[in-house]
Amino acid sequence: MERKRLVIALGGNALGNTPQEQLELVRSTASTIVDLVEGGYDVVVGHGNGPQVGMINLAMDFAAGNGANTPAMPFPECGAMSQGYIGYHLQQAIQRELKRRGIHKECAALVTQVAVDPADPAFQKPTKPIGAFYSEAEAKARMAGTGHTYVEDAGRGWRRVVPSPKPIKIVELGAVEALLDAGGVVITVGGGGVPVAETPDGYEGVAAVIDKDRACARLALDLHADMLVILTAVDRVCINWGKPDQAELAEMTVEQAKQYISEGHFAPGSMLPKVEACLDYVTARPGGQALITSLEKAGAALRGETGTVIRAS
Amino acid sequence: MERKRLVIALGGNALGNTPQEQLELVRSTASTIVDLVEGGYDVVVGHGNGPQVGMINLAMDFAAGNGANTPAMPFPECGAMSQGYIGYHLQQAIQRELKRRGIHKECAALVTQVAVDPADPAFQKPTKPIGAFYSEAEAKARMAGTGHTYVEDAGRGWRRVVPSPKPIKIVELGAVEALLDAGGVVITVGGGGVPVAETPDGYEGVAAVIDKDRACARLALDLHADMLVILTAVDRVCINWGKPDQAELAEMTVEQAKQYISEGHFAPGSMLPKVEACLDYVTARPGGQALITSLEKAGAALRGETGTVIRAS
Repeated sequence: MERKRLVIALGGNALGNTPQEQLELVRSTASTIVDLVEGGYDVVVGHGNGPQVGMINLAMDFAAGNGANTPAMPFPECGAMSQGYIGYHLQQAIQRELKRRGIHKECAALVTQVAVDPADPAFQKPTKPIGAFYSEAEAKARMAGTGHTYVEDAGRGWRRVVPSPKPIKIVELGAVEALLDAGGVVITVGGGGVPVAETPDGYEGVAAVIDKDRACARLALDLHADMLVILTAVDRVCINWGKPDQAELAEMTVEQAKQYISEGHFAPGSMLPKVEACLDYVTARPGGQALITSLEKAGAALRGETGTVIRAS
Repeated sequence: MERKRLVIALGGNALGNTPQEQLELVRSTASTIVDLVEGGYDVVVGHGNGPQVGMINLAMDFAAGNGANTPAMPFPECGAMSQGYIGYHLQQAIQRELKRRGIHKECAALVTQVAVDPADPAFQKPTKPIGAFYSEAEAKARMAGTGHTYVEDAGRGWRRVVPSPKPIKIVELGAVEALLDAGGVVITVGGGGVPVAETPDGYEGVAAVIDKDRACARLALDLHADMLVILTAVDRVCINWGKPDQAELAEMTVEQAKQYISEGHFAPGSMLPKVEACLDYVTARPGGQALITSLEKAGAALRGETGTVIRAS
């Protein structure tokens, strides 16, 4: 039997806000992932890092600014740290679950850079808030001192914002392929990848947040994966969300999805980027299938019992 | 031509104390590493993380204890973060140098766990200081609250100490092999590896520091590497260090090395563990060669112009 190649994008609910919580949560996440391995899929795992990189950035900033005598840490480096931290927990949990079921497979996390285009219009309009809240005066002093952008965040104070450009290349793609070809479960593009830009000398870090679902779609395309699975908090995508005529979707074509998007059915910053990531993938790979479902229902969704499938046509 | 497999252990002088300094230093480190790649070797890079994991642990502890509202981070998790942080810089620098020379090779860092034996006598006698200095009263309160061990450190205050057990297994060895077989330069066992102990359920983190030279020796053995290269601050190992009759050694057999050790020529915590790591390797792999030299002279040492070679006999 030919094994199918599957890229999973794990949402924040698959991880946790503290190391103890994360260690617990990744165990059930690992159980779902190993279900898919047992189901005959070669699995690549991408994951978010919003709360984790926020926590790391905040702690490093706080320590540097309050006399701990530790250096300030640039944002790409904080992202790389979060890949180590989350990757360690995830690989350990997946290894435990593989062992429990007597499956002899490697699982490892790769530190992964994802290239973005410095000419991406997102750099003109930073939108992703990161790190701590500051007073207006503090924020303005920081803006002057660093050139970073700070904006007022919903009455809670001022916060740094960074751009969210599109992923154009997975720098360590060859390493992902090599591990996958050797039969391993690969953890990669943590937090959407450490964002880098290509220069004549090579890659260098940029302060940005790459949407992890878009990074996983890029990865699924470049790996010629058979499926992109985006795991989130709901079993199925809905139209008319929160209204009396709310309805779950079992499937969507690209055309239907575009229609729903134009009608405003999917919330920006929530379901919209997930649906868009699926469209990126199935449009460029018409034979591929994208699936949006919950972590808990992933197995059932792959058997066609729930989830929302997005197809080219 | 058959390529030889070489494991390099990078010392702290190959990295740096701040992100900016590290980004600079890893560029010259990368140049040395790529020299070896060009010289016909398949290269695996291990590295230390003392200053880096100390800085991360200190910042996370400081932030958690001083109102940043971020969680305390266990020591193994800090080690995993340091692997992400250092691995990102190293892989980016090595990729840049490969590109500059027109060499088409992958380079990637793996989050790596290294197993230790919970019955290792080192757990009875923690010796490695980590993190911040505390007053005696603070240290005693922390000891009572956490069960951790704190000791008075040379008049500078009290500090937490953790054990330094021997590495017994590289958990992600198969992934290292797969990347190496695919022709890549692999960065692994950062900081000696994230220390874990095997339980009936699988691996779990332990607070410990694994000596990075010993971890690299373990790795070289398990990879059946042809050479173990330990890069440090001096070109050659010396006997009678700092005395009028100080003499550089071009080579040592295992027997000679043991004699020098018994005569107290090598400083504990400095050259001694490096020589011991080389002995671990060449004793178990009599056809292998171990080399201790400086980062700057690595190429010359591999051509036999400097460095200290340790052989089985």
